[in-house]
Amino acid sequence: MEHKTMLLNQSDIKSLLTMKDIVEIVDKTFVGFGEGTTINPTKVNLDLGETASYPDYHGFMNAMPAYVGWEDIAGIKWAGGFLGKRREMGLPYVTAMIMLIDPAIGEFKCVMDGALITNLRTGAQAAVAAKYMHPGKEITIGLYGAGMQGHMQTLAFAELFDIKELRVYDVFPAAAEKFKEDMKDTVKGEIIVCKEPQEASIGDVVVGFTQSKDKFIKSEWIKPGQIVFPMGSYTECEDELLLNADKIIVDHIGQCMHRGALHDVAAAGKLHEEDIYATIGDVAAGKKPVSNPQNERIVCVPIGTGAMDIAVAGVAYKRALEKGLGGSFNFL
Amino acid sequence: MEHKTMLLNQSDIKSLLTMKDIVEIVDKTFVGFGEGTTINPTKVNLDLGETASYPDYHGFMNAMPAYVGWEDIAGIKWAGGFLGKRREMGLPYVTAMIMLIDPAIGEFKCVMDGALITNLRTGAQAAVAAKYMHPGKEITIGLYGAGMQGHMQTLAFAELFDIKELRVYDVFPAAAEKFKEDMKDTVKGEIIVCKEPQEASIGDVVVGFTQSKDKFIKSEWIKPGQIVFPMGSYTECEDELLLNADKIIVDHIGQCMHRGALHDVAAAGKLHEEDIYATIGDVAAGKKPVSNPQNERIVCVPIGTGAMDIAVAGVAYKRALEKGLGGSFNFL
Repeated sequence: MEHKTMLLNQSDIKSLLTMKDIVEIVDKTFVGFGEGTTINPTKVNLDLGETASYPDYHGFMNAMPAYVGWEDIAGIKWAGGFLGKRREMGLPYVTAMIMLIDPAIGEFKCVMDGALITNLRTGAQAAVAAKYMHPGKEITIGLYGAGMQGHMQTLAFAELFDIKELRVYDVFPAAAEKFKEDMKDTVKGEIIVCKEPQEASIGDVVVGFTQSKDKFIKSEWIKPGQIVFPMGSYTECEDELLLNADKIIVDHIGQCMHRGALHDVAAAGKLHEEDIYATIGDVAAGKKPVSNPQNERIVCVPIGTGAMDIAVAGVAYKRALEKGLGGSFNFL
Repeated sequence: MEHKTMLLNQSDIKSLLTMKDIVEIVDKTFVGFGEGTTINPTKVNLDLGETASYPDYHGFMNAMPAYVGWEDIAGIKWAGGFLGKRREMGLPYVTAMIMLIDPAIGEFKCVMDGALITNLRTGAQAAVAAKYMHPGKEITIGLYGAGMQGHMQTLAFAELFDIKELRVYDVFPAAAEKFKEDMKDTVKGEIIVCKEPQEASIGDVVVGFTQSKDKFIKSEWIKPGQIVFPMGSYTECEDELLLNADKIIVDHIGQCMHRGALHDVAAAGKLHEEDIYATIGDVAAGKKPVSNPQNERIVCVPIGTGAMDIAVAGVAYKRALEKGLGGSFNFL
């Protein structure tokens, strides 16, 4: 028996996937969550000094295994973020690798970079979730954070919606100006660079891709008909906004209570699992529809699941196999 | 910056490590558990049909990340076992891969086979634990299961003890006879092939490396002064033996209550975490000594931790680097 494991690097992966692909893959995998064919245990954290006192390395790694039924693939992403020495060296915050197995026999099919796929699927998650919550094809967006994830998510929204207006705020105004230039062909409508955070809060969707823990998105800014997406491991929303939302929708209940936007209110005992209306998967699969979004303030938290990474990685692997791309190694 | 990741296969790893090395590495890592420098979160299981009804693949994978302080290395093993189609294909039960990172910056240093290391370190665990519990250099062993793990653990015991007698029982007598032939130069004393399970129960240590769930090791067989090591994910010991042991010692409390020898009595509410006397690490670090083993019936359960795999993998990686062994790939 042939025991070769395929090896893929970032440029291989980049050449194999478009944002259109990512959006479709993320969509199918959300539906799989709702239908029970996406299996995603709660990730396990190795604290290397992010919060632990030992070892003191200002980083963490998350182990994120998953099985994705619609592709019949299983795998794991081991991914983390490091400040400290890694930042001093000028390396990107995220470090990640993905391994895929044949789920029937456990043979290792592929080892590939996971950082690019992390960025791609994270950008797509809010846009795909919005598809099931925002009525119609036209959309206005308020975006906090004009960095790489801000770019990615705008590409993803442009795949699924006509963006009539995009308001962007960044603590570094130059970053917002650069975003406007980069995205001018992607966004059909106007891109408005905002001087104050509140100015960016009036879109149909309000997306937070900052690293803020200041809870700067105020409850009073958000009106019925708006959907707020606080992304990542940070706390961008005021507690009031979370506690008074008409619906809170998350991608993974186990993971969302312990990290990111909901962490503080959950840790304080103000928000419980039963306060979560549904998972994005439940909504996507039609089990818990969002039927009246015009009259509701919705907060949607896609904290990020390994299943999204494995689903994207699985498609990259299959296409690489068809095209004869990538390296290979026999580990046995 | 150079972004090459080293790749190591089984024969590379085999050429870099002896059982003497493994015993020393496992020992230091146990001590690190006791001293708090071995960081080992509870493993996370992806059920691919071992017990789950979907997907129906008769296998599982465990994600086992760890940081090993004495080596200053972090990594993850993703390992599992498959019956079904994998067994039909004649492949070994265990499938595993290990990834190592620089814990300061999260760069991926090495990807290597994990199956061989799993077997090596599993074999060493009981022998190293016994070093801290059995007085003196001479030892007699009762061994259940004459398979690969039985061979490995005998090699490990021979590194640390003079084996005065080894009694071996296997449900397949031919396997026990082959074991006797294979191990005749390793075991200084006599190897006795037993016809009935009880005949193998009289060693200073009694080690179970079977795949039995029949609880065939009876409480009445085990006398004060004996240490029983039920290894792996099975249930070889009668409940009475577990519940009436003078001391129960495990490698990882979180993991040992949910799988393996203690699973049934823990699940039935008959054994609680506070009934565990100590971890092997506590004993190895001198924090909770076993001072009176001659008068006690001890049950010791090394269920297996990722830290052992990462510690062994870390040494293999550093030696491969020195010797210029292995392949390499740039994943970025």
